[in-house]
Amino acid sequence: MGKALAQTLLKKGHPLTVWNRTPGKADDLVAMGARRARTVAEAVTASPLTIVCLTDYDTMRKVLEPAAEALGGRTVVNLNSGTPAEARAAVTWSQERGVDYLDGAIMVPPPMVGEPGAVFLYSGSPAVFARHSETLTSLGDPRYLGQDPGLAVLYNTAMLDMMYATLNGWLHATALVGSANVSAREFAELALGWFMPVVVDYAVLARQAPDLDAGHYPGTLSTLEMNLNALDHITRTSEEQGVHSGHPRLMKEIAERAVAEGHGGENYLAVHELFKKATLPTEETSTPRP
Amino acid sequence: MGKALAQTLLKKGHPLTVWNRTPGKADDLVAMGARRARTVAEAVTASPLTIVCLTDYDTMRKVLEPAAEALGGRTVVNLNSGTPAEARAAVTWSQERGVDYLDGAIMVPPPMVGEPGAVFLYSGSPAVFARHSETLTSLGDPRYLGQDPGLAVLYNTAMLDMMYATLNGWLHATALVGSANVSAREFAELALGWFMPVVVDYAVLARQAPDLDAGHYPGTLSTLEMNLNALDHITRTSEEQGVHSGHPRLMKEIAERAVAEGHGGENYLAVHELFKKATLPTEETSTPRP
Repeated sequence: MGKALAQTLLKKGHPLTVWNRTPGKADDLVAMGARRARTVAEAVTASPLTIVCLTDYDTMRKVLEPAAEALGGRTVVNLNSGTPAEARAAVTWSQERGVDYLDGAIMVPPPMVGEPGAVFLYSGSPAVFARHSETLTSLGDPRYLGQDPGLAVLYNTAMLDMMYATLNGWLHATALVGSANVSAREFAELALGWFMPVVVDYAVLARQAPDLDAGHYPGTLSTLEMNLNALDHITRTSEEQGVHSGHPRLMKEIAERAVAEGHGGENYLAVHELFKKATLPTEETSTPRP
Repeated sequence: MGKALAQTLLKKGHPLTVWNRTPGKADDLVAMGARRARTVAEAVTASPLTIVCLTDYDTMRKVLEPAAEALGGRTVVNLNSGTPAEARAAVTWSQERGVDYLDGAIMVPPPMVGEPGAVFLYSGSPAVFARHSETLTSLGDPRYLGQDPGLAVLYNTAMLDMMYATLNGWLHATALVGSANVSAREFAELALGWFMPVVVDYAVLARQAPDLDAGHYPGTLSTLEMNLNALDHITRTSEEQGVHSGHPRLMKEIAERAVAEGHGGENYLAVHELFKKATLPTEETSTPRP
């Protein structure tokens, strides 16, 4: 990812100094016109803006600590992923060292960096964002989400959460029909070629967002009770057909809990109310030991 | 649903006899031209084809049993949902009574029955399907899936499985950003207006179906190991932000298991291999008692 970021900045005409823990990794970039720094301090001194993309926040701090003095009065834009609390801790770390800090998240794979359609999320200091937004625009459409520095990684995490849930749904459903020798290709024709785009159209979901904000889940067309019946079929069918049943069973338990909490007559989206609350301890751990 | 089916058949000019456990429920249909039967036997005797849509297979058998003799040599098309084993058992029950049987599943809500875009799934005897496909076309586009009578409910279940997984992903992701006071509406703008349609485009998924059939999961662009890192962030963020963490934790455990089984260097779709297998007993239940 670091290489994709550097190549994009070079292609778009930004003067660039690069540093990597393995110096040889920068050879291609140097051939493209980048200046190679021998130390992190040399790298950060070369420019007012340092863009960092490492494994995690711990690694970022370990790498930048030796150059902390050189960073004073300069700006760091950090693009690794992590949790909101980690992003907020990085702000504190930066403030203690007099470093201007902006947290960000990359929403596209390396080949899409700098291409039309690439989106980068940022949150934290609006002044730092404004000062460098022109440079950041070279990497992708920059979306500023707000002053809470945790927002960029939080949005990133939530969107990946939805991505994995959808992928797992597709892969599990494919395994389920596969147990009766239906190919993934045959299933995709109906499930992805018709059912999902029509019944679970992303634009249709978006139109229901105001109902989630209002906690308004009218059960006029169908109720959570009725959906629980379907989730029971999905769980029993998974068991009967000998495929993994963890996901269906959890979805059924969540719907059962929502019904138990009084949402049975509302529509399925009412499970949102359950998701807003921390998971309760399981019965085993909540039962006091004798 | 029964009413939507009956109204559609009447509107499209089919002579129709109706029966309901609560006779008054058929008043509207009688006003539209349906004949009211006083008993199930009277209803099934009136036509060569009986369409049934009740709660489950047990209810269907209980309702039809008193009319079993009248049903001999006639056809039943059953549209309730259930498991493939229940559908196969319904075929046996029908054969024992000399009844021609076709199993089906309705893929749209009642208001869409008979409308353009409505899809009905059928499986079982190809002869029975061929004989009645014209009538069935009045209800919605009839898709015949094959001779295994369990296929219609299996496809139905698998598509709903994917639907609930995607809905839960969206609702959980919305709860996650909601913990930082981001509204569902704001989140939908980016997540459903850009990220999902671009990165998790249903048509893009469909193009990867042949790889699932081939068990071919090349880790050239990203690996399951890398995805596990993201799933760890999602789980920790859910816990940190005080929202429900059951789904992320399960997704992480599934990815961990897939890595443990040797898929770490393949791409994320390799969890399909795990989903094909029955859930292993948990450590608690698989540990022999002393």
